[in-house]
Amino acid sequence: MDSATVLALAREQGFRCYALSLDYGQRHRSELHAARQVASALGAARHEIIRLDLSQFGGSALTDHTLAVPMAGAQIGIPLTYVPARNTVMLALAMSWAETLDAQNIFYGANAVDYSGYPDCRPEYVAAFERMANLATRAAVEGRPTQIHAPIIALSKGDIIRTGLRLGVDFAMTVSCYQADDAGRACGRCDACRIRAQGFIDAGVPDSTRYQQPYGI
Amino acid sequence: MDSATVLALAREQGFRCYALSLDYGQRHRSELHAARQVASALGAARHEIIRLDLSQFGGSALTDHTLAVPMAGAQIGIPLTYVPARNTVMLALAMSWAETLDAQNIFYGANAVDYSGYPDCRPEYVAAFERMANLATRAAVEGRPTQIHAPIIALSKGDIIRTGLRLGVDFAMTVSCYQADDAGRACGRCDACRIRAQGFIDAGVPDSTRYQQPYGI
Repeated sequence: MDSATVLALAREQGFRCYALSLDYGQRHRSELHAARQVASALGAARHEIIRLDLSQFGGSALTDHTLAVPMAGAQIGIPLTYVPARNTVMLALAMSWAETLDAQNIFYGANAVDYSGYPDCRPEYVAAFERMANLATRAAVEGRPTQIHAPIIALSKGDIIRTGLRLGVDFAMTVSCYQADDAGRACGRCDACRIRAQGFIDAGVPDSTRYQQPYGI
Repeated sequence: MDSATVLALAREQGFRCYALSLDYGQRHRSELHAARQVASALGAARHEIIRLDLSQFGGSALTDHTLAVPMAGAQIGIPLTYVPARNTVMLALAMSWAETLDAQNIFYGANAVDYSGYPDCRPEYVAAFERMANLATRAAVEGRPTQIHAPIIALSKGDIIRTGLRLGVDFAMTVSCYQADDAGRACGRCDACRIRAQGFIDAGVPDSTRYQQPYGI
């Protein structure tokens, strides 16, 4: 839902949008299918899925299938579902594509509030990445610097949902669950599901998430 | 030859080395085969080749097979063989693997002298990347910062060759040519070949490069 809302915000600002997804060996593929649907529904000019098998490195419950997905509710500290440097890899790929497209604006769906345990979702990280990017690329050296936008970094999950709904995002299309089924239906029990469900409560709107059935029996 | 010399330098400093190559859709695969041989010969603990198809983005003569490799000799400015943000993508992947290994030292074979046209081979880029990395990862947040080493960044190609030879690098194993054949033999005509051949002349040692035959007929 974060990525969908960020795409809707970029479109609202008048940008022609090139959407990038990373197939990094995550447990389920339905989030990639959902990303394609969302990109199309929100009018992205193009959507690319880059395949990169981070499970060769291991070290995260999202890619290392021998580790269990945490179910005990959101905890203090950085969760086991942290994928080492995944967001830096994704932003580096976005840099590469942006330079090829001669695009100077990269939108990053990081959110510091609900996932405060992830260091690469903090504003100081985004600023440091932008500074690095502007020393890295031919475009920047030639006077076309890159700006990293992180428009939802300070929003609560409830605010993100309200923003997305205002811009016409259909959250039933989006997948947050760490272990969604092939149809993109959520487990309702993992940390990502708990945070998402609380967001709908905080936003004061019905939860449009498609849950797996039967549920809670 | 830069990567091989950097690996030899890291080993000389006593590091247990994990070598990373990127299969990014480059024209020829023999440099990956060469990397595996070099990693083994120089005592790397492990060598991983990560596949990532940057040709989905296009924009470089090294990945876009519709663009010609420049042959006119090294020129002023950033060459067409620049792959957008490739080194940033590689360093991001190195960050990911390093964090998984709990390793705090990343060795980067950038060289500012011979490739002065590449912005991501400058010391200020390396410093900015290190700063970003130390805001990005769980390891850094928990007090185990990453150091990016760029030990050959200020060396001439001749100095790199002398350093490598002192440490036992067999440069006949290494591939620099942008269009080497399947056996890793060099064309002798592209910019990478010219810079490499000049390096052997500057170092005052015989050129151990394996060239394609017949040559110059």
